[in-house]
Amino acid sequence: MTRTVYVNGQYLPETEATVSIFDRGFLMADAVYEVTSVLGGKLIDFEGHAVRLKRSLDELEMSEPCDKDELLEIHRKLVELNEIDEGLIYLQVTRGSDGDRDFVFPDPETTKPTIVLFTQNKPGLANSPASQKGAKVISIPDIRWHRRDIKTVQLLYPSMGKMMAKKAGADDAWLIEDGYVTEGTSNNAYYVKNGKIVTRPLSNDILHGITRKAVLRMAEEAQMEIEERLFTIEEAKEADEAFTTSASAFVMPVVEIDGVALGDGTPGPIAKRLREIYLDESMKAAI
Amino acid sequence: MTRTVYVNGQYLPETEATVSIFDRGFLMADAVYEVTSVLGGKLIDFEGHAVRLKRSLDELEMSEPCDKDELLEIHRKLVELNEIDEGLIYLQVTRGSDGDRDFVFPDPETTKPTIVLFTQNKPGLANSPASQKGAKVISIPDIRWHRRDIKTVQLLYPSMGKMMAKKAGADDAWLIEDGYVTEGTSNNAYYVKNGKIVTRPLSNDILHGITRKAVLRMAEEAQMEIEERLFTIEEAKEADEAFTTSASAFVMPVVEIDGVALGDGTPGPIAKRLREIYLDESMKAAI
Repeated sequence: MTRTVYVNGQYLPETEATVSIFDRGFLMADAVYEVTSVLGGKLIDFEGHAVRLKRSLDELEMSEPCDKDELLEIHRKLVELNEIDEGLIYLQVTRGSDGDRDFVFPDPETTKPTIVLFTQNKPGLANSPASQKGAKVISIPDIRWHRRDIKTVQLLYPSMGKMMAKKAGADDAWLIEDGYVTEGTSNNAYYVKNGKIVTRPLSNDILHGITRKAVLRMAEEAQMEIEERLFTIEEAKEADEAFTTSASAFVMPVVEIDGVALGDGTPGPIAKRLREIYLDESMKAAI
Repeated sequence: MTRTVYVNGQYLPETEATVSIFDRGFLMADAVYEVTSVLGGKLIDFEGHAVRLKRSLDELEMSEPCDKDELLEIHRKLVELNEIDEGLIYLQVTRGSDGDRDFVFPDPETTKPTIVLFTQNKPGLANSPASQKGAKVISIPDIRWHRRDIKTVQLLYPSMGKMMAKKAGADDAWLIEDGYVTEGTSNNAYYVKNGKIVTRPLSNDILHGITRKAVLRMAEEAQMEIEERLFTIEEAKEADEAFTTSASAFVMPVVEIDGVALGDGTPGPIAKRLREIYLDESMKAAI
């Protein structure tokens, strides 16, 4: 089945979906994105993603391509047209194109942002084999730019990090800066020791994960102990268990770091419990 | 006049030149670029740009879209079709698209790189009023990723830097990391004190400028003293003169840094002389 995607007001077959070569998203990575999960045909935490999108746009002085209601309508229409039961919706907004290349931002009065959305069908997303097995991660230096709180498409290094992990026989990489773990290539990172969940506090150094926020709230409600502070990869290797959170993989147990198995090398009880709670509550609140 | 541009083997009107929304250049800034100047209808240092392009591609394990001869032919044909006497040719290569979005690189056997080229007509480029007036720069923190030697399209921060400069009434920004100047937003940075040219040595921290290499060689041939070392913005502010080099602006005198005029606030003799030598020699060697 050919996907129907959305580009600047039009619903198009994916094979016909293009942007100008002068689009600033293409020429200068002048673009931000969001990925929203779909479970049971409904959107998980749409509100959280819409709010973060607005924040990313504001930080970059970029205009909104449309209001939140319209955004919701486009998401829902794509789910319907592409018959998505479980999967993802990818959304990207760029500063658009004034028909040429210049470092200086084009006039927002005359140059409108580009908006692109498409679905990815992922049957079995909620019960993925990967989540049951858990992920193996390696650690690599974090050499990304220093505004990781803005969700830009400058994803070359995260992509290179996934490739380094793959070559090392692992699933993903955790990034290290000044001796401390920042986050995973496309997720926030946590470890658990003696029942306490440790994760890095929010700053410009890491993505302000929508799933991070929800999971920490749920952990608190479940009376779990949480400590937000910097932590090293050595600490994490000595943990009882570890996990990551992201909008597309929810809560993903981590079973090995740099070749060191955590606990008995299988997903830990806290990660498994948080995944259950997150999926359960998120599906109830899905719209 | 509508430009003719080049996209993946086709010469197209600029208004019809598009790439897939799934192109990794658009989704992940997984792309590199080069900008070559045209003077008198000929290409300046094409060889240097072709060699650097190959290096960028190699560093990212990206395939070459075509060989150097073909690249030269495309450059020349675009100059001819668009009747460029003075101007620029922009070239971008991306890892292409396998029709979906994934952090993992697509198989290079089945996914070919995307190649895009277009011209920018700039009459008077060699004698631009900007070069006669000199540039005012401000200093801002360097928060870019740490492989600036690879010429990727991750240009959001350089673009933001130009906007910061503009808002401050300046022309450009010099970037500061760990107390030292790295380079300009899209050029290499130099100051001159007591006849000695000071510039940062090559590393992963700065672009390996094609124009930098040529200008340093020419300065040496002209018996000028050169010192390649880290330098602070304070040193530069106390300089007799300063300048930047880039493929699109050649040697650009800098007359003011953070509001402090250098010398008498007009382009310095060494910058002017190097610009003359560079333009003269480059035009002789142009192909």
